[in-house]
Amino acid sequence: MIYFNCDYNEGAHLRVLEALARTNLEQTEGYGTDPYCERAREVIRQKCGAPSADVHFLVGGTQANLTVIGAALRPHQGVLAARTAHINVHETGAVEAVGHKVLALPGKAGKLAASQVEEYYKAHVSDEAFEHMVQPGMVYLSHPTELGTLYTLEELEEMAKVCRSCGLFLYIDGARLGYGLAAAGNDVSMSDLARLCDAFYIGGTKEGALFGEALVITNPLLKKDFRYILKQKGGMLAKGRLLGVQFLALLEGDLYLEISRHADELAERLREAFRQKGFPFLVESHTNQVFPILPDAALEQLGKKYVYSYQERMDSSHSAVRFCTSWATEPEAVEELCREIGALPPSVVA
Amino acid sequence: MIYFNCDYNEGAHLRVLEALARTNLEQTEGYGTDPYCERAREVIRQKCGAPSADVHFLVGGTQANLTVIGAALRPHQGVLAARTAHINVHETGAVEAVGHKVLALPGKAGKLAASQVEEYYKAHVSDEAFEHMVQPGMVYLSHPTELGTLYTLEELEEMAKVCRSCGLFLYIDGARLGYGLAAAGNDVSMSDLARLCDAFYIGGTKEGALFGEALVITNPLLKKDFRYILKQKGGMLAKGRLLGVQFLALLEGDLYLEISRHADELAERLREAFRQKGFPFLVESHTNQVFPILPDAALEQLGKKYVYSYQERMDSSHSAVRFCTSWATEPEAVEELCREIGALPPSVVA
Amino acid sequence: MIYFNCDYNEGAHLRVLEALARTNLEQTEGYGTDPYCERAREVIRQKCGAPSADVHFLVGGTQANLTVIGAALRPHQGVLAARTAHINVHETGAVEAVGHKVLALPGKAGKLAASQVEEYYKAHVSDEAFEHMVQPGMVYLSHPTELGTLYTLEELEEMAKVCRSCGLFLYIDGARLGYGLAAAGNDVSMSDLARLCDAFYIGGTKEGALFGEALVITNPLLKKDFRYILKQKGGMLAKGRLLGVQFLALLEGDLYLEISRHADELAERLREAFRQKGFPFLVESHTNQVFPILPDAALEQLGKKYVYSYQERMDSSHSAVRFCTSWATEPEAVEELCREIGALPPSVVA
Amino acid sequence: MIYFNCDYNEGAHLRVLEALARTNLEQTEGYGTDPYCERAREVIRQKCGAPSADVHFLVGGTQANLTVIGAALRPHQGVLAARTAHINVHETGAVEAVGHKVLALPGKAGKLAASQVEEYYKAHVSDEAFEHMVQPGMVYLSHPTELGTLYTLEELEEMAKVCRSCGLFLYIDGARLGYGLAAAGNDVSMSDLARLCDAFYIGGTKEGALFGEALVITNPLLKKDFRYILKQKGGMLAKGRLLGVQFLALLEGDLYLEISRHADELAERLREAFRQKGFPFLVESHTNQVFPILPDAALEQLGKKYVYSYQERMDSSHSAVRFCTSWATEPEAVEELCREIGALPPSVVA
Repeated sequence: MIYFNCDYNEGAHLRVLEALARTNLEQTEGYGTDPYCERAREVIRQKCGAPSADVHFLVGGTQANLTVIGAALRPHQGVLAARTAHINVHETGAVEAVGHKVLALPGKAGKLAASQVEEYYKAHVSDEAFEHMVQPGMVYLSHPTELGTLYTLEELEEMAKVCRSCGLFLYIDGARLGYGLAAAGNDVSMSDLARLCDAFYIGGTKEGALFGEALVITNPLLKKDFRYILKQKGGMLAKGRLLGVQFLALLEGDLYLEISRHADELAERLREAFRQKGFPFLVESHTNQVFPILPDAALEQLGKKYVYSYQERMDSSHSAVRFCTSWATEPEAVEELCREIGALPPSVVA
Repeated sequence: MIYFNCDYNEGAHLRVLEALARTNLEQTEGYGTDPYCERAREVIRQKCGAPSADVHFLVGGTQANLTVIGAALRPHQGVLAARTAHINVHETGAVEAVGHKVLALPGKAGKLAASQVEEYYKAHVSDEAFEHMVQPGMVYLSHPTELGTLYTLEELEEMAKVCRSCGLFLYIDGARLGYGLAAAGNDVSMSDLARLCDAFYIGGTKEGALFGEALVITNPLLKKDFRYILKQKGGMLAKGRLLGVQFLALLEGDLYLEISRHADELAERLREAFRQKGFPFLVESHTNQVFPILPDAALEQLGKKYVYSYQERMDSSHSAVRFCTSWATEPEAVEELCREIGALPPSVVA
Repeated sequence: MIYFNCDYNEGAHLRVLEALARTNLEQTEGYGTDPYCERAREVIRQKCGAPSADVHFLVGGTQANLTVIGAALRPHQGVLAARTAHINVHETGAVEAVGHKVLALPGKAGKLAASQVEEYYKAHVSDEAFEHMVQPGMVYLSHPTELGTLYTLEELEEMAKVCRSCGLFLYIDGARLGYGLAAAGNDVSMSDLARLCDAFYIGGTKEGALFGEALVITNPLLKKDFRYILKQKGGMLAKGRLLGVQFLALLEGDLYLEISRHADELAERLREAFRQKGFPFLVESHTNQVFPILPDAALEQLGKKYVYSYQERMDSSHSAVRFCTSWATEPEAVEELCREIGALPPSVVA
Repeated sequence: MIYFNCDYNEGAHLRVLEALARTNLEQTEGYGTDPYCERAREVIRQKCGAPSADVHFLVGGTQANLTVIGAALRPHQGVLAARTAHINVHETGAVEAVGHKVLALPGKAGKLAASQVEEYYKAHVSDEAFEHMVQPGMVYLSHPTELGTLYTLEELEEMAKVCRSCGLFLYIDGARLGYGLAAAGNDVSMSDLARLCDAFYIGGTKEGALFGEALVITNPLLKKDFRYILKQKGGMLAKGRLLGVQFLALLEGDLYLEISRHADELAERLREAFRQKGFPFLVESHTNQVFPILPDAALEQLGKKYVYSYQERMDSSHSAVRFCTSWATEPEAVEELCREIGALPPSVVA
């Protein structure tokens, strides 16, 4: 079987693995206080144009989300997110487990609009029972979203403006950030995120690292004592330098964007093959996730050789599914899949 | 101003207050271990036909809900509830603050259907990512609902059947239980609740007591060590006998149902006045809450003398509002309000 | 049996009960927004010389403690308290249940010293692993303490000074505050507490009310959004005015101190009886709790007619126990008990 | 500088790293459902003589502890542990953050005795206020302890017996398990742990892996739905196979014990050097941690070249410190350190 079901089927990019091997027997202090983490922090600050940002390294995305949200909110506050957001659907209630409600709003192609946030906030403060309701304290976005879509710079500027005027933190989950930054049509940079958000993270797990996410905090309110909370929630890696070493390998040069572009281009190639065969998509996107809507017979046929992930039942004979590419996807595997899509017989496509 | 905005504007029914005064200087043990609580428990067990039920007394509804839900669920479990449910909307995230997600489903007139619960459960267990999602562990209903509607016995039987087959606890919030039991058309009894639910509570705060809710637990799994959790969550009243004394006054005879019937009848009278004037209702109900949809001008006019509570904007010139009656509502006040509704001039009614 | 085991065996002082009865059928808004609560707040602000303090009413002490501590601390912070402190021993882990460690220090007669707090804080910040340890964020005292002892004004001044210099909140649990204020030798006033603490509460449950504690918050950081958290933790009473009415009755005149003095004097009388008979005490105190150390035979003898509470085994034939007086204790009952103590035969006293 | 301060200064044992490199580009399912994890589970079950045990892999120790304890306890329960236990001192309140009190008992050389647990339990159930106190629900030990000491098989048998009779879970933190199993005088095996505990973990992070702990659960009550909670607490690694691959490399052959023995022997060598120079020890132990008590001058001298970690001030001129060896410690480094200890001048030793 060839796996297209997600973007974490393999280990790490070779240059990341080499960096780990090269530094393996050096002795350093633990918990992220070593020189590799320090250098990686510096590189990230530069890439973000944010010389005073705090940078913390965590092992995974759920951990990053629950730690940031838990650290930022007071007990009566909740976090606004799209209904399809990872924190609302696929983290087994991690946010609620640290005490906070996810205030889920209907998204459009996985995205929230600034106007929705503003309306929610205004409705809250003007409700006569406002103290009986969870107070919105943060907006959670992901870029790309769960559906692979991207915010435009203008949309993020508006969202940041609304958040500031309403006293809400703005936090962006960048589990697939590279695939977003490298995508056709993207006009958002790491500097934009650092300028507009209070915190965001640069995903490593799905982007060439063995594991790891680099959290960038620009708001001083969120910086205070963050390492205590990192430790408490189980997110402080003993051999923290493993994270520093990996992010250095990814970000010191251009590797992060190169491998993201590789995945995005292969995803476009795949999209094109589905499109040519006349299949519609659940959502239009240009990152590494492809969401075609396929008839059951086509799914069965492709499923004999390729692993994809199930998304949503559309009608009695069609489902939306997800095909992911990644830094590790081999062009040959995509070409082969494209050929097989092209060769699906009419009986299966109808 | 005359208050119709809620059902807790006054203190306690006189017979309740007299019982408190009569027993005031007696010495008893604390924390609900006194003879009054014991007798009240016995009366409730009899009324419920549930001789082995555990009965605990709590001061308020939010406390009861967060304590039961927190005691019943394991960390990864959530509670299914209608979107309009009190725990989802008006308890400032009390359930999330004890670590659990409210899994909100669209209700119909405030009610959940057994089929919705069954579908949700089946979708959960068949999802390939089920462990990444909150596991449903309980169904929360209220009877009457937030919108004053009632479940039929048949609906509750079905719900209980589904809950049992899916391994879900069934818990019913009876903050206004008496108004439900006394309502025209209700076919559910306390015994039915005790037989069908794992736990439910008999509301006192809105039903003639100064404060207090009587929680009935029939499922042995929920009984174990409940008093520890009651204490931990701040719900164990030092002078627990105050609750026992009040519930005895309400339930030993027929007072609870009498005063509920009083309120329901006055609510029907009020409904009739709105109906005759041609006003529609947000929802059809027969308990003590009335939800007419009124034009702004009528609201302004009535608001000069009567306090109601705001429910929902319907269109650019109409809102649904809530008028509540209670055990304490004076018939004269209702008559007067009915007259004023009847006398609203055409300019205000249109 | 005559109960001396605690100070909440009876209902409420008659003047409190009368106030409840007198206002019973008035209509007011709920949740503490009524005129009685407003007047009670004003009276308390005046008594505290703290015109800008926020005052909230809660039903019980565990609730007050968990709500204040939960509202004040960030996730990685804990609360310093004496090992014997109520929150450390007798609240079923209510503080931990809202996520915070009780950092228990050995007390002296139930009291913490400012120097202990300072040392703990300095040790924390100078530990190389400080981020791996719970950060102290608050000091919890009670006045009187669990052992009935009192802080001197000088001790509280020092504690407040240390807390401010270390960035710790100072919170005082005043479940028995009146019995402290009225005690022989006490030199602390409500104004002192309001000036020195960030928050403290004036106990009602053990001091003549049916139930209720009045929380005084002077630190603006703790004021913000407190009512949300009050609601979330189940501590916002629907008919909030019941608390306002009771505290008005207790505090508008001198009732609170009068009834406290009554209890303290009876406790002194009891102490004298034990002392004359040659019994030592677990701790020297002048409030309403008496902790004699008695031989088993004497305990058995007295236990035939009087209920006391068990405190601590001292050696193979002696235990420390607690006798409490209260606003409700009848002088005759104390006289009788004193006579019986005096009449204990030598065989029982040895 | 040469680091002896902890046992996680380096990366991974070469054979572990090679295994990661060898499997790097294979495609597998995520979240621990891959064939490597499956094989590693099988190897562990065999080593433990526990064919029906559940095995889960986590990234780190704090995470393992908070997840197991959070999954096992009901809200009102706490975990008994020695005062020096890692969960009580060095995890920033992680256990409290998931809602549970650590019930700390004085240890002897870091160890709890079965009799202490039994006494605590009996005192709890016989206390008249038991429901007002945290109920003990679990015993947490570590083997080796924080002070490097070991339980004997007899001690563990007794502890298990007491736990079973009191209804307490027994959980053992094996962060340094290998160093314990390989130590001179140890008579406990993995099979013993699997037989006596309800859950324990085999440490990888400090024992040759880049990171990772293998949790073994034998009690069916703890098995149920554990993966949900693993995900919720942020402990489910996306590329779970990284953990399986590492534990296979460590445990399929004898590597785990070999490298542990290596560290223990070097520690004995170091102990001997301190002993010969006349230095006492904080505690007698035979695992990889050495706790000499040294005069300030000697510490200063050694500190010029060696990094150790600080343990405890003993008197005005002496401190106990910790020197750790590990799988990665070079014998030459130990020899050199031993020579320098031997060569400390009398002025510095006194």
